[in-house]
Amino acid sequence: MTVDELRALVRTIPDFPKAGILFRDVTTLMGHGAGFAAAIGHLAQLAQSAEAQAIAGIEARGFIFGAAMAARMGLPFVPVRKPGKLPVPVLAIDYALEYGTDTLEVDPGAVAEGARIVLVDDLIATGGTALAAVELLRRAGGDVVQSLFAIDLPDLGGAERLRDAGVPASALMAFPGH
Amino acid sequence: MTVDELRALVRTIPDFPKAGILFRDVTTLMGHGAGFAAAIGHLAQLAQSAEAQAIAGIEARGFIFGAAMAARMGLPFVPVRKPGKLPVPVLAIDYALEYGTDTLEVDPGAVAEGARIVLVDDLIATGGTALAAVELLRRAGGDVVQSLFAIDLPDLGGAERLRDAGVPASALMAFPGH
Repeated sequence: MTVDELRALVRTIPDFPKAGILFRDVTTLMGHGAGFAAAIGHLAQLAQSAEAQAIAGIEARGFIFGAAMAARMGLPFVPVRKPGKLPVPVLAIDYALEYGTDTLEVDPGAVAEGARIVLVDDLIATGGTALAAVELLRRAGGDVVQSLFAIDLPDLGGAERLRDAGVPASALMAFPGH
Repeated sequence: MTVDELRALVRTIPDFPKAGILFRDVTTLMGHGAGFAAAIGHLAQLAQSAEAQAIAGIEARGFIFGAAMAARMGLPFVPVRKPGKLPVPVLAIDYALEYGTDTLEVDPGAVAEGARIVLVDDLIATGGTALAAVELLRRAGGDVVQSLFAIDLPDLGGAERLRDAGVPASALMAFPGH
């Protein structure tokens, strides 16, 4: 399947989560068997080019893409989790949202020292969550060599912020003007 | 990899989430590249035998196993989500926990009428969450033909409750006496 065909599988929902926002919904892409497998194939190829040694996925939609890539590539999967989910002492990072803050956690034992990690999420918007995940994985000893997304909303600048932080960012498809 | 080798990759954490509980942690299985791929291969084979037409995964660890299986098999992935995550009108079900209640939601448009669905989660204990997911997927029009788990804690009776509800239940490995 071509990227244009995959793009047609993404559903656009107006005014979610609030008025004026066009929400790009990957649920419909995952819900298409051949489309989801093709998306994972494309993303795995990009991770391969980055010589990934582990795939990290951000809870929860990043688990869907990242774990499928890891299993396909035979690589370790590192879950970057919401607070309170991991049963071991964690490394945690707080980061700012539009209103308030949020927290991500990782099991430091899940990150091999110096491992080449590819970070995965479904969508990159302003990049706040992805940047926090990069910092967290670095503190855990990982070398975040690439970030990959199904969807980029380039007008919101997240991919550029990741590149400024030293992490190349790529996406299967972009929705300019989001 | 054999199931015994996979079993050795599961980490046991005493007294989590509370005193007296041995927590069986699949994070270490996912964190082993060859082990995770082999686990997904075994589970996909079981789903194949059940003639799955779609894979449903329960948020969040069920996403990790279920999505990897779906991508490998070229099947649709249906996320069974925590409340408030889906951007569309949902079907929801409340179910009882040990203390209080919880809710699961699904996009009814993600379930094809009569589709043979295999439900996936990382672990089956008492089965409360899995039974709620089965009921929800049935209300959405799906035919839940099999449930699959990485780990079964058979003393807690969840797999038996699923079978009583008409859904065969299998796991890669069991920890009797949990």
